[in-house]
Amino acid sequence: MPSSLQPASITHVSLGDRSYDIHVTSGAAGDFAERVTRAVPDLTHAVIVSDEAVLSDWAAPLAKDIADRGIRVSSLSIPSGESSKSIAQFDRLMQWMLSENCDRRSVLIAVGGGVIGDLAGFAAASFTRGIRFVQVPTTLLAMVDSSVGGKTGINLPGAKNMVGAFWQPSLVLADTDVLGTLPERSFLSGLAEVVKYGVIDDAPFFGWLEANATKLVARDQDALRHAISASCQSKASVVGADERETSGRRAILNYGHTFAHAIEATAGYGTLLHGEAVSIGMQMAARLAIALKLCDAGLLDRQTRLLEACQLPVTLASADVDAMLPVMMKDKKVAHGKLRFVLPTKIGHVKLVDEVDESLVRDAIHNCA
Amino acid sequence: MPSSLQPASITHVSLGDRSYDIHVTSGAAGDFAERVTRAVPDLTHAVIVSDEAVLSDWAAPLAKDIADRGIRVSSLSIPSGESSKSIAQFDRLMQWMLSENCDRRSVLIAVGGGVIGDLAGFAAASFTRGIRFVQVPTTLLAMVDSSVGGKTGINLPGAKNMVGAFWQPSLVLADTDVLGTLPERSFLSGLAEVVKYGVIDDAPFFGWLEANATKLVARDQDALRHAISASCQSKASVVGADERETSGRRAILNYGHTFAHAIEATAGYGTLLHGEAVSIGMQMAARLAIALKLCDAGLLDRQTRLLEACQLPVTLASADVDAMLPVMMKDKKVAHGKLRFVLPTKIGHVKLVDEVDESLVRDAIHNCA
Repeated sequence: MPSSLQPASITHVSLGDRSYDIHVTSGAAGDFAERVTRAVPDLTHAVIVSDEAVLSDWAAPLAKDIADRGIRVSSLSIPSGESSKSIAQFDRLMQWMLSENCDRRSVLIAVGGGVIGDLAGFAAASFTRGIRFVQVPTTLLAMVDSSVGGKTGINLPGAKNMVGAFWQPSLVLADTDVLGTLPERSFLSGLAEVVKYGVIDDAPFFGWLEANATKLVARDQDALRHAISASCQSKASVVGADERETSGRRAILNYGHTFAHAIEATAGYGTLLHGEAVSIGMQMAARLAIALKLCDAGLLDRQTRLLEACQLPVTLASADVDAMLPVMMKDKKVAHGKLRFVLPTKIGHVKLVDEVDESLVRDAIHNCA
Repeated sequence: MPSSLQPASITHVSLGDRSYDIHVTSGAAGDFAERVTRAVPDLTHAVIVSDEAVLSDWAAPLAKDIADRGIRVSSLSIPSGESSKSIAQFDRLMQWMLSENCDRRSVLIAVGGGVIGDLAGFAAASFTRGIRFVQVPTTLLAMVDSSVGGKTGINLPGAKNMVGAFWQPSLVLADTDVLGTLPERSFLSGLAEVVKYGVIDDAPFFGWLEANATKLVARDQDALRHAISASCQSKASVVGADERETSGRRAILNYGHTFAHAIEATAGYGTLLHGEAVSIGMQMAARLAIALKLCDAGLLDRQTRLLEACQLPVTLASADVDAMLPVMMKDKKVAHGKLRFVLPTKIGHVKLVDEVDESLVRDAIHNCA
């Protein structure tokens, strides 16, 4: 049991009594148990819910390290994939936690990608009306997006994240080692959200990404730590200003996502990875912004080149606009049937635009075909 | 559409930006739509979820009054009974809300007893990670207990309220008229929670109850308004001091409930009404307090006489102590397997007692047979 910790880049998410830290490390998984026990007082029962794909390499060693400290551990692995974000899987998880004698003092540790974090986070929010939880994201997408900010949830048929809670973790532990074995498509998909932070919030970071895309694609550890930390800092500042998505500020994180959710829903969940849909969605949003004269074509050019350097798709030949539009009307960012978009004005800046003409939305989708 | 409102006894629940009012009225259901629109800004879509038992007399007229103001209304009725507090019913409710194009600005109005309020409240807490909601309790139990304080939730097999959220309503509207048609057993059951407030928090109110039990049992409207308001004031002060049941203060509301939940679970949900189980549970708790020398036998005598005057059961011949104990060990008030009870020291005062000897718990149950 190490009592000293390896170096970490730590980002603080400032939310009053719900504040917490994000630790970004490389090769430091061996001290995760120590980090958990330091951040979570009175840990006597750890409930580890993991993606079955990372069970043996990541969840099982963490479970052993925690158990070695004399702490009771319950472990469950869940199938990878969006279909696990269902009410049926939520039901099974709740019943399993009950059978494991979980109570309000138990701490849930989610080890996996966004699917596991969202499902387990909602389980933590709901079991006995809320228990503490820790996120151990094992995909790039989860590290830079879903594990930070407290959004948890599951899907309904045809509508993503429709059921859930805002429930903040007590700690987020991200180690770049786990990305080494991530399938190529999944890894690259995560870069879409990284690019997003550059567009919406951080022009210098966008420039850094343009200079370092090759290193990132090659999974250079130093470059990854920087990209993950910078992304988390952007997200932390936005979430700290608008935890529950009420002021409009947090909505900027949805850049590209109104399109992306409609792409995912109409292509069938799982056909495209989330980040791939976000990449295409950002292209649609940028085209819509140009049509609305909010930005010039140069923004789209830079965004296109960076996404392509990250080996992400920038077009979708099969986009079904007639199927996508009704889904977009049901998006949570819609206020009673009026389409609302997050659109860029220049690199590093976006604005919320309400009541966009439907024909312009159709054109933006068509022009990405 | 009345622009002036009939008199109401109003109790304020003070919870910062989650504060709200409880209106207790008699014969004022005709102005509920006006009260809702005053308390809930920007109401454009009302989602009315009602107990099918009160659909025609209460939910339908309220739906019409709201629709007459040009506000879109979606209505759904749900079967009465504890079995509706299931994940399956929650799933159906979520999918129905999606099909009705609910969004984050929709407002859910729960019209019914505790089952509807708990289920619909959890739906409000979870749909798109939380929408506003209004409680219109139609049973005495819901008026004095479940509609106030933000506890929402559903059951797992063998464990009540195991899945849920703390989610405060924007308004609670209770009119004593609806109690006129309540079945006798259901009505009397609600009086158990009323008696509870006297024991745990308000000795003068306990005295008032002793003097007015006959009027209450006869459903005298003035007596009911006073009893409901006094109960809500006790609950509001406790909830205001400990919204999420973290400091221990809110736990006092569970007087009798650790026993009651075990009674309900082992007798099969629905065999005994919740209030009947609470009545017996308070008797078990008082006997346990006497065994622990926390109070004298006079407290049990007064409590017994008042509960009997309210025509509530004070014994349970069929109590199965061997079945009840394991359930009590899973109670949410248990901290990692240590039994914890709320026990009276004198009328109007209770304390939390940890690590009670199991044999004393067995005796308390046996002595109520």
